[in-house]
Amino acid sequence: MKAMSIGLLGLGTVGSGVVKIIEQHQDKLMHQIGCPVTIKKILVNDPAKERQVAIDKSLLTSNVDDILDDPEIDVIIEVMGGIEETKDHLLHAIRNKKHIITANKDLMALYGSQLLKEATANECDLFYEASVAGGIPILRGLADGLASDRITKMMGIVNGTTNFILTKMSQDGSAYEDVLKEAQSLGFAEADPTADVSGLDAARKMAILSTLGFSMTIDLDDVTVQGITEISEEDLAYSKKLGYTMKLIGLSSRDGEKVEVSVQPALLPEHHPLASVHNEYNAVYVYGEAVGETMFYGPGAGSLPTATSVVSDLVAVLKNMRLGVNGRSAVAPQYPKTMKQPSEIHAKFFIRLHVKDEVGVLAKITMLFAEHGVSFDKILQLPLNEKGSSEIVLVTHHATLTEFEKIQQKLNDYEMVKEIKSTYRVEGENGK
Amino acid sequence: MKAMSIGLLGLGTVGSGVVKIIEQHQDKLMHQIGCPVTIKKILVNDPAKERQVAIDKSLLTSNVDDILDDPEIDVIIEVMGGIEETKDHLLHAIRNKKHIITANKDLMALYGSQLLKEATANECDLFYEASVAGGIPILRGLADGLASDRITKMMGIVNGTTNFILTKMSQDGSAYEDVLKEAQSLGFAEADPTADVSGLDAARKMAILSTLGFSMTIDLDDVTVQGITEISEEDLAYSKKLGYTMKLIGLSSRDGEKVEVSVQPALLPEHHPLASVHNEYNAVYVYGEAVGETMFYGPGAGSLPTATSVVSDLVAVLKNMRLGVNGRSAVAPQYPKTMKQPSEIHAKFFIRLHVKDEVGVLAKITMLFAEHGVSFDKILQLPLNEKGSSEIVLVTHHATLTEFEKIQQKLNDYEMVKEIKSTYRVEGENGK
Repeated sequence: MKAMSIGLLGLGTVGSGVVKIIEQHQDKLMHQIGCPVTIKKILVNDPAKERQVAIDKSLLTSNVDDILDDPEIDVIIEVMGGIEETKDHLLHAIRNKKHIITANKDLMALYGSQLLKEATANECDLFYEASVAGGIPILRGLADGLASDRITKMMGIVNGTTNFILTKMSQDGSAYEDVLKEAQSLGFAEADPTADVSGLDAARKMAILSTLGFSMTIDLDDVTVQGITEISEEDLAYSKKLGYTMKLIGLSSRDGEKVEVSVQPALLPEHHPLASVHNEYNAVYVYGEAVGETMFYGPGAGSLPTATSVVSDLVAVLKNMRLGVNGRSAVAPQYPKTMKQPSEIHAKFFIRLHVKDEVGVLAKITMLFAEHGVSFDKILQLPLNEKGSSEIVLVTHHATLTEFEKIQQKLNDYEMVKEIKSTYRVEGENGK
Repeated sequence: MKAMSIGLLGLGTVGSGVVKIIEQHQDKLMHQIGCPVTIKKILVNDPAKERQVAIDKSLLTSNVDDILDDPEIDVIIEVMGGIEETKDHLLHAIRNKKHIITANKDLMALYGSQLLKEATANECDLFYEASVAGGIPILRGLADGLASDRITKMMGIVNGTTNFILTKMSQDGSAYEDVLKEAQSLGFAEADPTADVSGLDAARKMAILSTLGFSMTIDLDDVTVQGITEISEEDLAYSKKLGYTMKLIGLSSRDGEKVEVSVQPALLPEHHPLASVHNEYNAVYVYGEAVGETMFYGPGAGSLPTATSVVSDLVAVLKNMRLGVNGRSAVAPQYPKTMKQPSEIHAKFFIRLHVKDEVGVLAKITMLFAEHGVSFDKILQLPLNEKGSSEIVLVTHHATLTEFEKIQQKLNDYEMVKEIKSTYRVEGENGK
């Protein structure tokens, strides 16, 4: 029986994991697909280099066309990273009628719609489960759920580095800079952590998730992004005191046909399932009109978890090939995109202020909120070490982002308000 | 284009939900499957009865053969419940080459293997996602994961009634009997709650999950079961004090080819993701050799969540029909079953004792554990109101069930030990 031939672009940690899993699970794959699976060629920078995995050196090539133009190769697995050049390789492969599996979130966030369109036109499959949340089968879960439901909201902890940092800061009361160094030494943060701590990596994943979940083309530019670099130990201590846990939350929500997609540090009630997602783990909390609330949890990165997702995609592609039904899985976004305006975004807000320690300060501040129709869930006032100052922490009931921003502007103008130290959204309360 | 015709057995809350979803999502279903879907006949006890759902009365029948023998019906959805008679109906339908979707855990736990075998022989699909954990796509998740991984352990909160009761007992410090009454008045527990509180319902689901996850025929008789009726407020208070949360845990684990499947109240570290599964929610925590730890969370019951799972199964069956590949999904268990002996079961244990308040009691007790090679993680001794008595709570490090049972026998013989009040397993620590 003819074997299915795979071309692998990249042999880093994920690529090595894919090689290992395909070798170790050959029997199971055969059982499910009905034919053997072989890796025919692997693209590497330097075929002569010593490798961690035992690999037949004759499979290695540094010329990508050896793979893209090989008529015997049915499926391309892309685990090399990169954006522009990689996109060109994949477009070339698709035009050669090859099916694609990619773990590349940067690529999918920028060129996902284009690649999916091209794949559909060429009756090719394009699967990208590993591009969001490593080992968690979230895209498959969404696609299945979509069959008979309407997704109204997704909240995701989709970046392991920032979740590791926030978990440690929260548990140990340590400062951001110290924990970042620890994360770097443990391999949970890169030497240049910008893409992670700025929220960009999470934003890419939320663009991919939202495009699928809402069936609209959500671009990276549509995602409002705020990272974790400004979070202080004080913010975390107050969160805890008020019964919240701080997480970097990717949020996609829809009211009617209007959507919001954002990434920001937010407070969750400490009993919310997302609040128990610790360290480098990821999770996506999904609200469906019929199914209610579900959550998918697991490792968001790592060689073997990511490789496992890639191989699950491979099985799906190979089954489709045996059935002759490739190219039907990539459903083009069905709905036009309308982003919510700030006046249409409703949330609870946390705000921490330093004020002058004078009579009537709290009354004046709460009056300002009342004038904007905003009431309070929680109020805390404490003296500061700094003489003549005190600290006020407020958690509002639901308000629009517009009203909350207007209130902040006015607070800045008040002579008694020394500084607005921080503001955060509060999410996940009352089943919202 | 010819429509796919469905026969529905049962029109209770889940059946009505299925009717509603198929009507409301006709466009989406058409988009995915490529043809319309219609419900042709519905089995009910009394076709004349008034119903909550608007339904064409000409579809209703009280004669099951009108459905089972209708050559135009392609798929049977069974949401009527019952075991022996229902099994006979489904076998009859399978022999008439009809595909089956069932939400019936009682049936699948007892006759799943037989039904799957018959379905495979007749090239029919038999899907049963809704039989375990209502709206959570756990069976699909396991089946996907299995493609390229090996599952070593599953821990499940798979019964909503008992989780609701334990959550309330834990939060409010209330007694079991009081919370049970509250659960009954809220509709989270049935008038006769025996199947839930005895652990039987959870055991049925763990038998179904383990059969799929380990690819072995695990019968209900293979599952060791202990319910929640003996849990006291004191046990919950001590759990909390020691940093644990008590849950009714379904546990399937495998070392080499030997497995344990059990249901019992167990203590989890309060930061474990399963510890945040509150009220009537369900979750299954899965350990895979490659993927690591993943969790699937969602509503374990309810009309619409369960109906959503049923319709997801329906989409899978209908896609298979269009592709002409039915009957390949039910993979017969591949491995022989070997259950672990008590000497092969390793766990940490919690034990609470009432002892005479004498010099050297704790020393004598800890010595006994040491003689059996068992050391301690946590020790707590407190005076009791009862004069001359004190209470000792111990949490061991890992020990075999055999050694722990031997120790309990000896403790019972000690004159200074008044009573062993309770023992529980401690699970979910250190990534185990």
